[in-house]
Amino acid sequence: MDKKVLNKISYGMYVIGTKYNDKNVGCFVNTVTQITSQNPIIAVSVNKNNYTNEAIKNTKKFSVSILSEETNSDVIGKFGFFSSKDTEKYEMFDHKEVEGLPILNEKVCGNMICEVLNVVDTETHDIFIARVLDAMDLNEELTPMTYKYYHEVIKGGAPKTAPTYMEEEIKMENVEGLKKFRCKICGHIYDEAKEGVKFEDLPDDWKCPLCKVGKNMFEEVK
Amino acid sequence: MDKKVLNKISYGMYVIGTKYNDKNVGCFVNTVTQITSQNPIIAVSVNKNNYTNEAIKNTKKFSVSILSEETNSDVIGKFGFFSSKDTEKYEMFDHKEVEGLPILNEKVCGNMICEVLNVVDTETHDIFIARVLDAMDLNEELTPMTYKYYHEVIKGGAPKTAPTYMEEEIKMENVEGLKKFRCKICGHIYDEAKEGVKFEDLPDDWKCPLCKVGKNMFEEVK
Repeated sequence: MDKKVLNKISYGMYVIGTKYNDKNVGCFVNTVTQITSQNPIIAVSVNKNNYTNEAIKNTKKFSVSILSEETNSDVIGKFGFFSSKDTEKYEMFDHKEVEGLPILNEKVCGNMICEVLNVVDTETHDIFIARVLDAMDLNEELTPMTYKYYHEVIKGGAPKTAPTYMEEEIKMENVEGLKKFRCKICGHIYDEAKEGVKFEDLPDDWKCPLCKVGKNMFEEVK
Repeated sequence: MDKKVLNKISYGMYVIGTKYNDKNVGCFVNTVTQITSQNPIIAVSVNKNNYTNEAIKNTKKFSVSILSEETNSDVIGKFGFFSSKDTEKYEMFDHKEVEGLPILNEKVCGNMICEVLNVVDTETHDIFIARVLDAMDLNEELTPMTYKYYHEVIKGGAPKTAPTYMEEEIKMENVEGLKKFRCKICGHIYDEAKEGVKFEDLPDDWKCPLCKVGKNMFEEVK
């Protein structure tokens, strides 16, 4: 099986959240799908190891924030690579509360309030099937962020179709002794050849541009 | 509820198919989602009124073809707006058979062979949860077609963010007596102001660019 085929499936970028034990919890997901149109139902799959999964199973209610290309990219770093068990995620960003649920106010394309109808156990993940009770904060000016955009633009790697791709390849071939470093938390690659600064020369307070951890969380890519 | 918020969810474009009563059947869907990564499982929702839904419920196997921006746009017209009950869809396009299932060979990003594990009844739709048994025909050069691309590029309407949008608005305001016609099958809009040719002046054998039905299937948008 060529698993790379599955990477060709298209997704958007979302934050889902709920209030659990009086605390706002939430995580990043890419699997929100509208299932029915009248009195709409959506589905979203969430890893069972995720604290937000446990929370939603208990509260049976969650919010969905549809991220845009202009949403603060720290949102992805925080909601994607940290656990709500020990991180106050919503509190780091502009957010509000609707029907007791936290929703993001960070240049999102829109927000939804959902009630779980059914949970389908699917090995490592659960699929939450939920009624959309309300939808608001539509921002028609913003472009929904896609998973592809996130990989190609936010992570900084140039796609093969990008005009800059060839140049970068040539640049790489011409430099010697330059290294790459990978963030152990979020996988972001710091490429010395591309950045023009050696990793060791970065200031001590430098942080991963994606998930904001320090230099000590990076390891060299051999 | 502002239902337009739900239009901000991102999707790809896919054809799913199976062999039912010795006939290739299939339809267009936008809801393919990967659920688990090890020994991968995907989900796809299909309207209950769809003949392909009945077929997959019986065969418990289906193929997925991931459409690209270069896939023949007739594929969407045929698979999206006609029923396999009375249309031989695969036979109109380059296709092959893998493990007894039809798969498209029309500049797709890749193909998958899936086996249904579970069917979740969700009012008007069923969600098929299926194991990916095989994945092949990866084409890294091609860009997966998104639903957004389909709406904005294939359907020909200029999005608000497009450089041409304002010009078209001005052009529309300056013309009088020009009309719009809607395809009764697929909803495609023929806009005289945009096309520069009156609908009545189109040749008799003119066909809907999307679903290929004749002029008689268009009605004026009042």
